[in-house]
Amino acid sequence: MEKSSLSKLSPVELRHLIRNGGFSGQTSGLAAGFTQANLVILPRSLAYDFLLFAQRNPKPCPILEVSDSGSRKLQHFAQDIDLANDFPKYRIYRDGKLTAEVTSVEKYWRNDFVSFIIGCSFSFEAELLAAGIEVRQISLGVNVPMYNTNIELQPAGKFHGQMVVSMRPIPEAQVVTAVKVTAAMPRVHGAPIQIGHPSEIGIHDLAHPDYGDPVPIKPGEVPVFWPCGVTPQNVIMQVKPAFVITHAPGHMLVTDVKNTSLKYE
Amino acid sequence: MEKSSLSKLSPVELRHLIRNGGFSGQTSGLAAGFTQANLVILPRSLAYDFLLFAQRNPKPCPILEVSDSGSRKLQHFAQDIDLANDFPKYRIYRDGKLTAEVTSVEKYWRNDFVSFIIGCSFSFEAELLAAGIEVRQISLGVNVPMYNTNIELQPAGKFHGQMVVSMRPIPEAQVVTAVKVTAAMPRVHGAPIQIGHPSEIGIHDLAHPDYGDPVPIKPGEVPVFWPCGVTPQNVIMQVKPAFVITHAPGHMLVTDVKNTSLKYE
Repeated sequence: MEKSSLSKLSPVELRHLIRNGGFSGQTSGLAAGFTQANLVILPRSLAYDFLLFAQRNPKPCPILEVSDSGSRKLQHFAQDIDLANDFPKYRIYRDGKLTAEVTSVEKYWRNDFVSFIIGCSFSFEAELLAAGIEVRQISLGVNVPMYNTNIELQPAGKFHGQMVVSMRPIPEAQVVTAVKVTAAMPRVHGAPIQIGHPSEIGIHDLAHPDYGDPVPIKPGEVPVFWPCGVTPQNVIMQVKPAFVITHAPGHMLVTDVKNTSLKYE
Repeated sequence: MEKSSLSKLSPVELRHLIRNGGFSGQTSGLAAGFTQANLVILPRSLAYDFLLFAQRNPKPCPILEVSDSGSRKLQHFAQDIDLANDFPKYRIYRDGKLTAEVTSVEKYWRNDFVSFIIGCSFSFEAELLAAGIEVRQISLGVNVPMYNTNIELQPAGKFHGQMVVSMRPIPEAQVVTAVKVTAAMPRVHGAPIQIGHPSEIGIHDLAHPDYGDPVPIKPGEVPVFWPCGVTPQNVIMQVKPAFVITHAPGHMLVTDVKNTSLKYE
């Protein structure tokens, strides 16, 4: 199916297409206006520590919804959904190592799996664009640059580590607007964590991000740093659990919930 | 110590006094401006279900902080703290029945205890008063009226039930302000859940609240209903866990965090 036809599909139509093997690509720009989400599937034995870690670190780890143990359904973010098939691509990690990339995790499913649905900056980027702020990596068609920092997170049980941040160059005159727009969306990372002084958070070379692609910062622009959804995956992989499933980067769940409804509840 | 002298103490001074047996009364009006909090202590075996229940029902169950298993400390809401002694009064429940009211739970403490520190409407009432809105039960010196409703909560594991709400009569001209002020504080229950039509949520007799005291509604006033912190205790007691500790009503933890910092993060 052409991308232009794809972009006309509703969230549930898109999930059906993905579920039936008709689409396994990136979801950026699809089902415009609807929230897209990250996935982490952990066994129940690690779920309490991870939920507590997210409760203590809501900025990098904004939990949108948690499934019941063993369930492939959600209650709030999507009705007609199969968590084992509705992401276009999944990653299987064993002992902290990526071992497979697949379009269905049905054959791996276990009754003790808990699915964590985590907010994604796609939601606030839509709002930044609506406020007239260019989002550089979207203009350039590349991935957002992401950096490890020295910002210690609150540990919880097995999980601990430092925050990963994403960076977007913002014209000085629009920084306040960018803060206001994103601060209003705490369920998708919220306000920036640093404005203009990367070395303060342990970032010394903007040209070489730890994840994603570098983007140019033009004269008169300030690098602005937001808590990033790579953080939870990064923290989990440091623990090297025996078995973890995540979505593949950019291959998100398209939910039935509008981005605008993620503003203050 | 006189109440007037008490009210001059800082949060940490007040906790020291309580810890050393010097005060075991209600905390309403003490350490003005600082957040007070509810307590639920559960064994680790119930902690995941309860944390998930709170994640799914943040309006009635706004978790401010969760202790590490077995720890009597907090990280964020108070530094110099002993969770087993710093509430003026505790309640011990066995098999869902209140069996004791005590000023210390040190001798009951177990290594598998998890303490849930839960937001309290004291915080938003201070903001209502600051906005020039009378809070009737404070004016009358009685407890806030609370009602069972037919609002089903999202179940999680062992926990399920209906929301309990508190009611405050608000003059019609101030209802919008009351909504705005409390909506800005989602970590302490947030916006009202119903305005002016109690029968819509299953409340048929305002004169006979299920908990607390009735208060008069004057001509030109509207009954406004907020999600209530009695909900989590109510839901827990329905499960009749073998052993639970809570604070005694009105005998709250006085934290080091200002109410104003509970506005949007």
